[in-house]
Amino acid sequence: MALTSRLGHSVTPNALRSYLAEFISTFLYVFAAVGAAMSSRIMMPDAASESSSLVAVAVANAFALSAGVFLAANISGGHLNPAVTFGMAVGGHISIPMSILYWISQMLGSVMACLLLRTATVGQHVPTHAIAPQMTGFGASLVEGVMTFTLVYTVYAAADTKRGPSGVIGPLMIGLIAGANILASGPFTGGSMNPAYSFGSALVGGSFKNQAVYWVGPLIGAAIAGLLYDNVVFPARSPDARGLAEGGV
Amino acid sequence: MALTSRLGHSVTPNALRSYLAEFISTFLYVFAAVGAAMSSRIMMPDAASESSSLVAVAVANAFALSAGVFLAANISGGHLNPAVTFGMAVGGHISIPMSILYWISQMLGSVMACLLLRTATVGQHVPTHAIAPQMTGFGASLVEGVMTFTLVYTVYAAADTKRGPSGVIGPLMIGLIAGANILASGPFTGGSMNPAYSFGSALVGGSFKNQAVYWVGPLIGAAIAGLLYDNVVFPARSPDARGLAEGGV
Amino acid sequence: MALTSRLGHSVTPNALRSYLAEFISTFLYVFAAVGAAMSSRIMMPDAASESSSLVAVAVANAFALSAGVFLAANISGGHLNPAVTFGMAVGGHISIPMSILYWISQMLGSVMACLLLRTATVGQHVPTHAIAPQMTGFGASLVEGVMTFTLVYTVYAAADTKRGPSGVIGPLMIGLIAGANILASGPFTGGSMNPAYSFGSALVGGSFKNQAVYWVGPLIGAAIAGLLYDNVVFPARSPDARGLAEGGV
Amino acid sequence: MALTSRLGHSVTPNALRSYLAEFISTFLYVFAAVGAAMSSRIMMPDAASESSSLVAVAVANAFALSAGVFLAANISGGHLNPAVTFGMAVGGHISIPMSILYWISQMLGSVMACLLLRTATVGQHVPTHAIAPQMTGFGASLVEGVMTFTLVYTVYAAADTKRGPSGVIGPLMIGLIAGANILASGPFTGGSMNPAYSFGSALVGGSFKNQAVYWVGPLIGAAIAGLLYDNVVFPARSPDARGLAEGGV
Repeated sequence: MALTSRLGHSVTPNALRSYLAEFISTFLYVFAAVGAAMSSRIMMPDAASESSSLVAVAVANAFALSAGVFLAANISGGHLNPAVTFGMAVGGHISIPMSILYWISQMLGSVMACLLLRTATVGQHVPTHAIAPQMTGFGASLVEGVMTFTLVYTVYAAADTKRGPSGVIGPLMIGLIAGANILASGPFTGGSMNPAYSFGSALVGGSFKNQAVYWVGPLIGAAIAGLLYDNVVFPARSPDARGLAEGGV
Repeated sequence: MALTSRLGHSVTPNALRSYLAEFISTFLYVFAAVGAAMSSRIMMPDAASESSSLVAVAVANAFALSAGVFLAANISGGHLNPAVTFGMAVGGHISIPMSILYWISQMLGSVMACLLLRTATVGQHVPTHAIAPQMTGFGASLVEGVMTFTLVYTVYAAADTKRGPSGVIGPLMIGLIAGANILASGPFTGGSMNPAYSFGSALVGGSFKNQAVYWVGPLIGAAIAGLLYDNVVFPARSPDARGLAEGGV
Repeated sequence: MALTSRLGHSVTPNALRSYLAEFISTFLYVFAAVGAAMSSRIMMPDAASESSSLVAVAVANAFALSAGVFLAANISGGHLNPAVTFGMAVGGHISIPMSILYWISQMLGSVMACLLLRTATVGQHVPTHAIAPQMTGFGASLVEGVMTFTLVYTVYAAADTKRGPSGVIGPLMIGLIAGANILASGPFTGGSMNPAYSFGSALVGGSFKNQAVYWVGPLIGAAIAGLLYDNVVFPARSPDARGLAEGGV
Repeated sequence: MALTSRLGHSVTPNALRSYLAEFISTFLYVFAAVGAAMSSRIMMPDAASESSSLVAVAVANAFALSAGVFLAANISGGHLNPAVTFGMAVGGHISIPMSILYWISQMLGSVMACLLLRTATVGQHVPTHAIAPQMTGFGASLVEGVMTFTLVYTVYAAADTKRGPSGVIGPLMIGLIAGANILASGPFTGGSMNPAYSFGSALVGGSFKNQAVYWVGPLIGAAIAGLLYDNVVFPARSPDARGLAEGGV
C-alpha cells in the first residue's frame, strides 16, 4: 500500500474516532490507576510496604483496564498503551502514521488524567513508577518487558477472530493479566507495562528517574509478543480484526 | 411525539415493571454499598484511613452494581442511578416523564436500603459521603463529575447493540469501572457517582453536608457522556436498545 | 401432574445426576467458604474484626459460588442452597419430592466439606455463623432474609431464558451478589444466605446457637423472590429452564 | 489406535504449537503467582500470617490462571498443570506421549518463571509451598487432592461442548475456583493444586521438603475428577473438545 494511501487512512472519520476513543479510555484507566495509588498513600503514609495497598492498586488497574479496553475495543482496538500499539504495528495490524497518532492520544489521555488528579486534590503529589533499591535497571526492564509480553500476547489473543466466541471475555482477560502482573511486581518495579502511564505520571509528578526502564522493556516485550503470536503460535491465514486494520473498521 | 403520548407510555405495564426493577436493583446495590461501609467502620473505628477497608467497600460496590445492572438490564435498562437516567434523557433514550419516575424509584430504593440497615442493626450509624478536608467543593464536584462521565459512557457502550455480542459482559464492566473509581477517589470524595445513593444515606444518616457535590458533578458528567457518545464517538444510525425506548421494550 | 408421576421423576438417571451435581458443587462451595474463614482465624486471632479477613472470606465465597453454580447449572440448575431450592419450589420450577432430595444432597455436601476440613487440619475449630451482640434475632433474620431475596432473585434472572444470551454470565453474577452481601453483613450476621452452609458448619463446629436465624430469614426471602419474579417482574408466558423442569433436562 | 499413530500425532505442527502454548501460559501463571508471594514477603516479613497477603496471592493466582487458560484454551486445551493433563489422560482425552510432552512444557515454563524472578530481583528468595506445622502429610495431601479434584472437574466442565455457550466464561471459572481454594488453604498447604508450580519453585528456591504432598494429592484428585465427570455426571455420547484430541485441533 502506498504511503499517501496510508496517510490518507489516518485522518478518516473512523480514524479520528479511534484517536478520541484511545484518549478517553487511556484517560479513565490512568485516572483510576494513579488515583488508587494516591488514595493508598493518603490513607497509609507507608503504603509502599502494605499488601492491602498493593491489592487496592492492582484491583483498580485490573478493573479500569478491563472497562477501558471494553469501551474502545470495537472502535480503536482498545490499546490504551503505546507498547500495545507498537506490538500491533510490528505485526502489521496498524500503519505507522496511525500508530503515531495513537501514541499521541494515549500520552495526552495519561497526562490529562494526572493533571486533573493533581488539580482536584489541590496539589496532592502524583506518585511515579520507581524501581526497588536492590533492582538493577536491566532487571527492572526485564521484569517490565516480560509482563508487557504477556499483556500484548493477551491483547492479540483477545482480538483474534479465529478463536470464535471466546473473544467476548477478552477485555476482561486483558485487565486480569495486568492486575496479576502488578501484584507480582509491585514492590520491584511498580508494575507499569505502559509507557504512557509512566510518562504521564512522571511529567506531572516531576520525576523522570528510571523512565527508560518503562519504555525499553515494554516496547521490546510487545514486539516479541506480536511476532511470536502471528508467526508461530497462531499463523494468520485470513484477514482479522486485531487493532484498526488499515482501511479502518 | 406528543406530550400525551409520552405520558401514556410512562404508565404501561412494561413501564411499571421498569420502575419496580429500578427500585429492587437500586435497593440491593445501596444495601451492599452502605452495608460494606458500615461493616468496615464497625470492625475498624479508623476505617476511613485503611486500604483494606477501601478494598472491601470498592469490591462490594463493583460486585453489587454488576449484579444489580444485570438484573434490571433487559427490563428497565439497568440505570440504578439518577445520573445515568439523566444521561439517557439528554441523549433522548428515555422520556422526561419516565425519567422522573425512574428517579423516584431509585431514591425510594436507596432510602429503603439505608432505613433497613439502620433498623436491623438497632440504630448503627449510616455513613454518608463526605469530601476530604483539603478538597474544595469544586474539586470534589470535578472528581465526581469525571467519574460519573466514565460510568455513564460505559452504560452507553454496554447497551449499544451496534457493538455485537460483546455487550454480554456489559453489566460486569459497569460494576468494574465503578469499583475502580471508588478505589481512586475513596479518601477524596468517597466515590459516589450516584445521587440516589448519596441522598439516601444522607437522609437516613442525618447529614446533608456537601450534598450538592454529589448532584452537580454527576449530572453534568452524565450529560456530557451521553452527548459525546451519541454524537461523536458512535453516531447512531439505527434504532438501538439503550435504556427503555419510548415505546417500551 | 399426578403424585406418582412426580415421584417417578425424582429417581430418573437425570435426577440422580442432579443430586450428585448438587452434592459436589455445595461441597466445593462450603469447602472454600469455611476454609477461608478458618484460614483468616489462624492467621489473625482477631480476624473477626479485620477488614482484610472479611475481604478474604467474601472473595472466597464469590469465586467458589460462581464456579459451583457454573458446574451444576445445566445439570441440576445450580442451586447449592436449600433456600434457592425452596424459592424454585414455591415458583413451581421443581417438584416437592425432588426439592427434598436436593436439600439432602446440599446438606450432605456441606457437612462433608466441614468434616474434611476439621479432619485434614487435625481438629482445627470450624467457625460457625453468629450474630453480633447488638443485633436482635429479628434484625438478623431480616438481614439474612433480604440478602437471600437478592440472591434468589438473581438465580431466577440468571436462568431466565427469556433474557437471551446475557444469561451466559449468570453464574458469575450469582457469586458476585453473594460476595457483596457478605461484605455488607459480615460483622452483623456473618452473611450466610444458605441454610446448608450454616447447618453443616454448626453441626461440625458444635454450636447451633441462633441457627433459626439462618433458616427462617433465608426461606422467607427466597419464597418472596420466587413469587415476585414470576408473577410481577417477569410473568412467564413460555416454558423456561429455571431449575430442573419436571421432566428432567 | 496404534502406538505409532499416537506417537506421530505428538509431533505435528499443531502439537508443537500446543507445547509452546502450554509453556507460555504456565510461565505467565507461575510468574504472577510466585511474584505475588515474593512481593508479599518483601512488603511484610510476616506475610505468611497476614490476611491481606493471602488475598494478594489468591487474586494474583485467580487472575493469571484465568488469563493463561484463556490464551491456551483453543490451542492446547489450556491445562497449565500436570495434574490437569493427567486427569485428561485418565479420561482418554489426550494420548500418553502428548501428555508427557505437555508435562515437560509445563515444568520448563514454571522453572523459567522462577529463575527469571530470582535473576531479575538479584537473588531474592523464591518461596516454596509448605505445609503448616500442625498438618500431617496425609492431611495436606488430602486437602491438595480435594482442591485439585474441584479444579480438574471445572476444567472438564469448561471444555464440555455439550454445555452450549456457557463455556465462554469457562477460563474465568477455572481461575476463580483456584483463587477460592487458595483462600481456603493458604495457611495450611499454601494452595498449590499444581505439581509444576510446586516443582519449579522448589527447584529454584532450593527446598524439596514435602514435595510429595504436591504430587500425590493432586494427581489422585485429578484422576477421580476425570473418571467421575466422564462416566457418571456427564457421560459423553458425542466427540468433544476437551483437551487436544488425538488428531489435533
